Amino acid sequence: MTTANHDLTVEEWSKMSKNVRVLNENRETKRIVIEGQIEEGEGDEKTTKSGILILDKEPFQFDEVLTLMKDNEQQFKVDFINDIYRQYTVAARSACNNVKSTFIYPATPLHVEKYSKKDFALVTETHRRYETIVLPYIEKQQFNLQWVYNVLDGKSERERVLLDTDDFLLALNPSWDGTVNDSLHALAIVKPRNIRSIRDLKSEHLPLLQSVLEKSMNFFSSKYGLSSKNIRAFFHYPPSYYHLHIHFTALANRICGVEVERARLLQDVIDHIQLQDDYYQTKTLYYKLATTNPLYKLFEDDEN
Amino acid sequence: MTTANHDLTVEEWSKMSKNVRVLNENRETKRIVIEGQIEEGEGDEKTTKSGILILDKEPFQFDEVLTLMKDNEQQFKVDFINDIYRQYTVAARSACNNVKSTFIYPATPLHVEKYSKKDFALVTETHRRYETIVLPYIEKQQFNLQWVYNVLDGKSERERVLLDTDDFLLALNPSWDGTVNDSLHALAIVKPRNIRSIRDLKSEHLPLLQSVLEKSMNFFSSKYGLSSKNIRAFFHYPPSYYHLHIHFTALANRICGVEVERARLLQDVIDHIQLQDDYYQTKTLYYKLATTNPLYKLFEDDEN
Repeated sequence: MTTANHDLTVEEWSKMSKNVRVLNENRETKRIVIEGQIEEGEGDEKTTKSGILILDKEPFQFDEVLTLMKDNEQQFKVDFINDIYRQYTVAARSACNNVKSTFIYPATPLHVEKYSKKDFALVTETHRRYETIVLPYIEKQQFNLQWVYNVLDGKSERERVLLDTDDFLLALNPSWDGTVNDSLHALAIVKPRNIRSIRDLKSEHLPLLQSVLEKSMNFFSSKYGLSSKNIRAFFHYPPSYYHLHIHFTALANRICGVEVERARLLQDVIDHIQLQDDYYQTKTLYYKLATTNPLYKLFEDDEN
Repeated sequence: MTTANHDLTVEEWSKMSKNVRVLNENRETKRIVIEGQIEEGEGDEKTTKSGILILDKEPFQFDEVLTLMKDNEQQFKVDFINDIYRQYTVAARSACNNVKSTFIYPATPLHVEKYSKKDFALVTETHRRYETIVLPYIEKQQFNLQWVYNVLDGKSERERVLLDTDDFLLALNPSWDGTVNDSLHALAIVKPRNIRSIRDLKSEHLPLLQSVLEKSMNFFSSKYGLSSKNIRAFFHYPPSYYHLHIHFTALANRICGVEVERARLLQDVIDHIQLQDDYYQTKTLYYKLATTNPLYKLFEDDEN
């Protein structure tokens, strides 16, 4: 086996790579993910290494837009003209043309899997299916929660903690640098260690949920001057780990899974438990799963 | 008054316009909206006309990505290198640099308002507030529903109708051209004319809601080969018009207001009415409104 050439530049890789294909693309956010392969070594030692190139168009910068408008290099090609409305296509040769590019080389099959397009599908989780399919799956997986306990015990990520109360710990989400208010994303991690998800919530937890909502909103108000009217507090179901946590994001931040088939407002959860103590033990929950998720396969088997 | 020069090209406008400012921007979708002003006429006849330039970066095209990779004109500027992960910025001078540009000139103050950044805020609609604030507001506005009745009566938009049943009419949403399955967006408009929104729904409407869900999903399956697992059926609350209608969008289509503070899954609505007949007459609803919406002002007044 030859060792991979870690020093291959992205320019060299781009020109040399074979079997170039699209792993994924997002037309809404203007991203594309490309895989290409490089042959290394000779004869019996010949191996093929994958590389992954992730391209993201950058947001517009005002000063660059001014350059685009004032520069003579740009040409506005007319698509259509209808009264006061006109549409053009501009090839931005000298401004507004930056592409952020992430290059992974050599990429393992796990990298290729991680960056490939995932299909999602809705599942119907009745309380029977929760008990017979989901709960055994969670228990069998024995998801490692040590990292959560380390955060709660102050053994790691202490610099991300915003607020520490008897009931919960409020922490910066890693995706948020703590500066731009429009992209606020914080997480409340509850102190009790026996609440896996909203499926476990009953009226005995109402004081905990009220405490999370009120103390966190008070914190955002006093620390950042943000009103609770501009922040959504919600759970993901299913969660990415089975220790109860609540997301707080700025209303303007739509990136972190706020779709109705994935998110549940904390206030709705409180209302529903007040309406019926066992609401979350009996309600059928509708949500989406990646079709590559092992849980999805279990649901499919149950239908047949 | 001089008349506006409708023939001004976007290039001329770009170079001549003054007081250029950002009306709105979306860093997630890579859009920016610019306003600029042109002075027309002389002396007493001098007037100022606004123009609006909307710039959207185009999604990546695979053939252009290949050009970007193979072309010698591009330079990959290193941002950081960390083991197998490297990040670069590329100024895309010869490919992947298309900007879709919409130009409105002359633009009225209403155009400027329409394309300006809107702030949203969450409101808490208790059933008391629905009865004392929202319902009187709806009735006072007397939103004109004649266009809906024209569609139901087959007097307009007949070419958009997909399915006509005793209970409802299924129509293409104008934003969808009916071809790409990932961007599916259809609307079910119910035949009864006395249901304003989910606030009016009770157990007597369950057969109607079940019919909408089942017949629409059967249609998408037989006509487009789409499974109900890949389509979300939901209401907006508040709706944009007060005649009950249900949205159907592909799971992959996240554009049409699917945030948890705006959308309610049809299946959840059915479940909730089965749980409690007057669920939607009594439940507090949390949702977002543009702060420029007159209804938002009424909520604010009620709080003070």
